[in-house]
Formats: sequence, structure tokens, C-alpha cells
Amino acid sequence: MDKVIDFINVNRDRYIDEMKRYLAIPSISALPEHKGDVRKCAEWTRNEMQRIGLQNCRLEETPGHPVVYGEWLGAAGAPTILFYGHYDVQPVDPLHLWTSPPFEATIRDGEIYARGSADDKGQVFMHFKAVEAHLTQHGRLPVNMKFLIEGEEEVGSANLDNYIKGHKHLLTADVVVISDSPMFDRGIPSICYGLRGLTYFQIDMRGSKSDLHSGSFGGAVANPAMVLAQVLAQMKDKSGRIKIDGFYDDVVDLRPEERAEWEKLPFNEKKYKAELGAPKLFGETGYTTLERVWARPTFEVNGLLSGFTGEGAKTVLPAVAMAKVSMRLVPNQNPQKIGDLFEEYVKKVTPKTVELHITRMHGGKPWMTAFDNPYVQAAGRAIELGFGQRPVFNREGGSIPVVSTFQEELGVPCVLFGVGLPDENAHAPDEKLDLGNFHNGVIAAAYLYKEIGELKIGG
Amino acid sequence: MDKVIDFINVNRDRYIDEMKRYLAIPSISALPEHKGDVRKCAEWTRNEMQRIGLQNCRLEETPGHPVVYGEWLGAAGAPTILFYGHYDVQPVDPLHLWTSPPFEATIRDGEIYARGSADDKGQVFMHFKAVEAHLTQHGRLPVNMKFLIEGEEEVGSANLDNYIKGHKHLLTADVVVISDSPMFDRGIPSICYGLRGLTYFQIDMRGSKSDLHSGSFGGAVANPAMVLAQVLAQMKDKSGRIKIDGFYDDVVDLRPEERAEWEKLPFNEKKYKAELGAPKLFGETGYTTLERVWARPTFEVNGLLSGFTGEGAKTVLPAVAMAKVSMRLVPNQNPQKIGDLFEEYVKKVTPKTVELHITRMHGGKPWMTAFDNPYVQAAGRAIELGFGQRPVFNREGGSIPVVSTFQEELGVPCVLFGVGLPDENAHAPDEKLDLGNFHNGVIAAAYLYKEIGELKIGG
Repeated sequence: MDKVIDFINVNRDRYIDEMKRYLAIPSISALPEHKGDVRKCAEWTRNEMQRIGLQNCRLEETPGHPVVYGEWLGAAGAPTILFYGHYDVQPVDPLHLWTSPPFEATIRDGEIYARGSADDKGQVFMHFKAVEAHLTQHGRLPVNMKFLIEGEEEVGSANLDNYIKGHKHLLTADVVVISDSPMFDRGIPSICYGLRGLTYFQIDMRGSKSDLHSGSFGGAVANPAMVLAQVLAQMKDKSGRIKIDGFYDDVVDLRPEERAEWEKLPFNEKKYKAELGAPKLFGETGYTTLERVWARPTFEVNGLLSGFTGEGAKTVLPAVAMAKVSMRLVPNQNPQKIGDLFEEYVKKVTPKTVELHITRMHGGKPWMTAFDNPYVQAAGRAIELGFGQRPVFNREGGSIPVVSTFQEELGVPCVLFGVGLPDENAHAPDEKLDLGNFHNGVIAAAYLYKEIGELKIGG
Repeated sequence: MDKVIDFINVNRDRYIDEMKRYLAIPSISALPEHKGDVRKCAEWTRNEMQRIGLQNCRLEETPGHPVVYGEWLGAAGAPTILFYGHYDVQPVDPLHLWTSPPFEATIRDGEIYARGSADDKGQVFMHFKAVEAHLTQHGRLPVNMKFLIEGEEEVGSANLDNYIKGHKHLLTADVVVISDSPMFDRGIPSICYGLRGLTYFQIDMRGSKSDLHSGSFGGAVANPAMVLAQVLAQMKDKSGRIKIDGFYDDVVDLRPEERAEWEKLPFNEKKYKAELGAPKLFGETGYTTLERVWARPTFEVNGLLSGFTGEGAKTVLPAVAMAKVSMRLVPNQNPQKIGDLFEEYVKKVTPKTVELHITRMHGGKPWMTAFDNPYVQAAGRAIELGFGQRPVFNREGGSIPVVSTFQEELGVPCVLFGVGLPDENAHAPDEKLDLGNFHNGVIAAAYLYKEIGELKIGG
């Protein structure tokens, strides 16, 4: 590996120049006027993959923006990594809040500012450079690799599921690697091995055919806004525990090793509370804040609407009331099953004084690769070699739907190998990537291929 | 009274022709472009009052539209009625829903259709004709009368309170009579002797300084929409009883006579439920629907707003949640005191996980004249003589703020002597007044003056 690492160190400045060109392409997938730029970026990606020595590099058409595919499969007997990333970026509004133009990458204080720097072109490019270093120095990779770089991640990956389902053989692998997430904190590299799932609903209640005068009719009929409040209040007890019957049946308990690992993390509750501007932190009794966010399910009200909401006072008895609600799920909760339990419970606690309508919006399964999984541990060693310190093994509270798709369709573990930072402004003005982390990330990725290459197939 | 009644019967058609001219003036107080029409209508009112023989008829200027005043004070030793009404009308939008033009009064099926026919020019004119009949036939009224006809009722009577407070001596009376409300039902004349009061609030809660991602932060902080639901749910118990400490302390219990009177009313719960389109009627345990609406206080949620309320799903953990809430009050609840109890209770049940802000919007006192009050009973006899049947004595669930003002500033009882109908479309297209009820109302008003004139001062 010495030659590979030396090469990476020597070429540090060239990488940045090349990355700037990648970041200059405004591949905003959400905006039709940038359709040509998105395609140009797909082509740039393919050309770069070809240039560094990957094989069979090509654009694969979809009903939307194309997927870019490339591979290197010369490591007979070694495992195969499927690397997933995306070359499309978020819109840049509001433009006036950017310190430098979003598509003219600019370095300030060791960070490169540009749309796509962290999310996700910079992190994709990091792997290109690690591949390039291996192939330049040894003419081969220590592992088999397939690259799948999509162009619709920022618009919901509308065509990716179908693409994966239709190309299972092409995408066969032993592990999926994704670099599209931040590390735990600046100076604290991390490997994320679990994500929460989701199930999302709209509840509509109707108490009368039209809004009523609260003087003339108040007292005679149920107020749907009040009934909605009463129903929502019955979703949780005072300790923050969700009261839906059977809700916790499939929840995998936190393992003592995980709790011990997280306990050691430099997490400052006071600072966290101050950053959120919360009067007080609150969550399920018996768990720490990180445990609550990473490993415990939630019930949230995402929206409420009923009656008069303008300035001033209107004495209306609303005809209807609406809530958007969602539950974050943890392994092994199934969104379909939890959704059924939710609907059953809401029907049980809603009185007959209102008409109830429940709409199931969307959902996603929770995901977890055991943190002692060999691929996860290999990624940990690679991070330690790249960053000079052992990474923390964490989970995240959010969902990355594609991770579940890979798990379900390809049946392989997934490693989230992200080098962004929590303050990277991924979907905001002044998106940035720390160049030190980028450089360490290239080295870590180079080690990742070696570490995984030395594992037996299947881990 | 025979000559008076004969005169009224003989002049029936002339009344309608005259009323049409009154209804032709588009005295829409809410629209600046009709300011001249409102004044013209005030002058028409004054001229008509002068013509029928009232004295000292004049426009009294206010910062808004003028008040019209007139009097007849020749009944030495008899009580004095202060009649209150208004000559302004609601806007007419949407115009295309009117069957005939709103300011060209048109008779169909025994009803006169025009803006202002029921609310309130038609009912004011009914009293003018009763006065005219007495003065024409006897040269005197059987009672002293003061008329106060305002031009801003439909825009909240902004200047009336000050006018009354500044003219207490001028307006001194023994009883206030208002004809600006519907009777209980077609064929069921009524005397309304009680109204509910009101106190209205906005509750704002904040859980964080900005909206949060429900994946990244869900579980760590309280959700203000959920906290709001929990707080609202604690306002009432399952039997519909309000849980605010001390809320019922000053509530005057329904008297057995009232309950017996209302029990006899032809009220069809099934029809009522169907008209409202309510799946089920619901209210405080132990009371009938009419009792709940007329004589029991309520707590209503008038509006709810939090987080994402558009189409689809957004996984937001809202920073803020807002509710508009109000309580209808019954004698002898005081809006100020109830408001204090409400604020205290909300503060008590709101957890420290959110910042709470309560805004007191507006309120009005409940009002009641005992239904065995001599003036109320005199009005009942007058209605019976005019309509050929004993009226029902009811209360209403809504509020008429001016009634409380009269009660407080002049300290006299008030009689609501309305001959409209529940389907009169007072603020909607095709407003109408039943001509049979109008005619009977003129006769009833003529008897009202006589009946009150025969009472001792003070009832």
C-alpha cells in the first residue's frame, strides 16, 4: 500500500483541480432547464471512470436521467463491492446566500465550497481517486468493484428501484458501499451501520358537512379538531412510549455493546439543546438522546390543520381537521405491519362522533448491518488507517431508502462510509467539503478496497 | 287597540311598498364606496321616524356612520322602551347567487327577498309601522319610546359602545327591545331571554428554533404539535365536561321551569343531525341538545396549524404549533375571570419542553333576563296577540355584544323580539322576510307598547 498512499499524497493538488471541474457542472436534477447539464455530468462521470481504468463504463438510460455504470472485475476469488453514489445535485436557491458562486468551487479555510462538494460528487470523486491510485501503481484493484452512480437521488431516485430490480445479475455483489453521509462530528470519523425506517399517514376527520357557527352550534356536536387532539394525545403515554397495541413487538433491543460504544461518544447534550433551540430535551424514558434518535422508534405529528388559522379571531366550529403523522421505525419493525397496527388503533380510539379517513402515504424499512459484521469492521479499519483514529460505530435516525432497496433486492450488507461533516450544508447555500477529510477519505477508500479484498467472500 | 289593529290590517299593502323603498338603499356599511348610500339610508330612517310622528329625530355623528335617534316621551308615568336596531346591511357577494337583485325587493311565495329584509331594516320598519298606527289612531303611544338605529352593526358596532357610554342620560330607559333575530322556527314565535358570552384565545407553542428533520431529530425533543394535542385533550373529560379548575363555579344552573319549557319544544334531533351532516350528536352528559347550546358553556378548538399541511408527505418535526380556542360562557361566568382560569390551567398542563405563549383575543359577557321578568312576559303576551299563539321562551347559543353593553351601561333588562326565520339567509344571497310574520310582527309590536305601557316602571 505504500506506493498507493504515496501517489495519493503526491497528487493531492491535482485531485482538487479535477474535482473543481466536476463540481462546475450544474447537474440539478430537479430543474428541467438543467436536463442537458445533468447528462453532461453523467458523461463526465463515465469519462472519468474510463480514464482511471474502470471497464465497461457506460450510461444506462432510464425514463429520467441516466445511471452511470462501470466495473473492474479482475480480482478472482475476492469479494465484490458495489459502490453507489449520485452525480446530481440540489437546486441552489436562495442564490444570494452563497458566499461564492455555487458552481465555481472556491477554497476557504481548508474547505471547498460548491454545490455537490459533499452531496455527493466530492465523495464519489474520492473513490475515483482511490481506484486510480491502485490501478496506476499496481495495474489492479485488491477487490472486485462495480460502480453505480445515479442522477436522480435529489428527486427521490424515482427510477433507481426499477433499474436495480431489472439488473440484479449485473449488480451482484458481496457488499454495498455508499459515501453520501456525514461523519459523527469534525474530527470524529464514523461508520454508520443502521438507519430508521418510516411509515407516514394522513388522518382526516369530519364532524359536520360544513363549518358551523360556534355560538349557534357549539355544544351540540363533536369538534373534529378537538377529537383529533384527543386521538393524537392517546398515541403516547407520559413517558414518551407509543401506545399503539403491538407497536414494540418486533423492536430489536439495543445490545449492551452498542450502548457502551455510544456512551463513549463525545456528545454534549447542553450544546445539542442550545443548537436546536429547545427549551428542554425530551424522549422515551430509559434511553439516552443518541439511543432515542438512532435506535428507538418514534411517533411524530408532522402537520396539523383545522378551521380558522389567520390573523385574529373567528368563532368557527370547524367541519374538518387534518393531521399528518409518521413513525420512525427500527429493526425489525415492518412498515406494513406497523401501519396496520396504527390504523387499527386510530379506529379503536376515534369516537363515532366524527367520520374518520386514514390515508397511508409512504414508508420505508429500517436497515441495520450488525456493527460486528466483517465488512463493517473492515471499513472501520480502513477509516482508522485513513484518518489516524478509530472511527465510532453509529446509527442514524433518518432513512436512506436506497439502502433498504439494496438490502432487499441484492440481499447484501451495506456500509455507509461517509466523510462529510454535520455542518456541510448539503441542501443549503454554502455547501462544502473539508479538504483534509477528502484527502484522508481517498486514503481510507484505498485501504477499504484492500481490507475488503482480504476478506473471504460473504465476509 | 281595535282601531290600531284595523289600521294595520288596512294598510298592509302600503307597508310593503314603503318597505321596498327602504330596502332599495344599498346601505352596505363594510364597503367605502357605499358610504354615501349608508348616509342616505340614515336620512331616510330619520325622515320616516319624523313622518310617523316621533320627535327630536336626528342623525348623531360618530367617527363612522351616523346613529339615528328619535323619541316620543308623552306617556307620563309609563315605562320607557329603548328600541335598538340597525339600518346598515351586509355586502351582497356572491351576487350571481341571488334569484332577484338584492336591492330590488321582490315578493315570491309570501316572502320579500332583499338584502336587509330580515337583518334588520324589515324588522326596524315593523316597529315604525306599529308606532305610526298608534299615533295615527290615538295621537299618542301607550308607552314612552326612544329609537336608536345604528349604521355599523354589520361592521362590529365599532362606535356604538362609545356612543352609548357618552349618552347614558339621553338613552335612559326601563327596558331595551331589539328585533334583530329569528324566531325558534317557522310557525313557532319565540322570545329569546338569554345569550352566551365568549372568551377567545390563541395558544402558540415552540419546541425548537426552526423546523427539524423528523429522522435526524425525532425522539430527542418534544414535538410541539403533539404537546398542543395533549394540552387540548386535557381541556375536556370524556363526558364533555370542561376540566379547567373553577370553570363551572359561577354557572347558573338551569331552572326546572326552563328545562320543562324547552322539553316541550318541537325539536327533532334526527332532522337537526341530518341538517348538520354530523355522524352523531355529542355534548355534555346530562343535558339535552338545546340545553347544551343555549345554557351550557363550551370549549371549542376554532383552528389548528402546525408543520406541513400541503399535499403529500414531508417528514418535518415542526418548530411551532398554534391553536385558536374559545369558550362560550353562560350566566354568571365572567369572561375575564374564566380567561384567567384558562391561562392558569394551560400553564399548569403544558410541559416545560415547549415555550408557551397565550394571546387573549376578545370576549363578551353572557346575558340573561329571567324569563319570568315582567317585560319578557309582556313581550310574550304581545307575540301571542300578534301571532295567535303563545311564543316559546328560549335562549340562543351565540352572542350579541350590544345586549351586554346595554345591560352594563344602562342597567336595564333587554327583550329580543325577533320575527325572522332560521332560514332567512341573513348574511347570504336571497335574504328574505316572511310577509305574514312581518304583518303579525307589526301587530305584536303595537301590543308590546301597550303591554309594557301598562306595567309599573321597573317592571
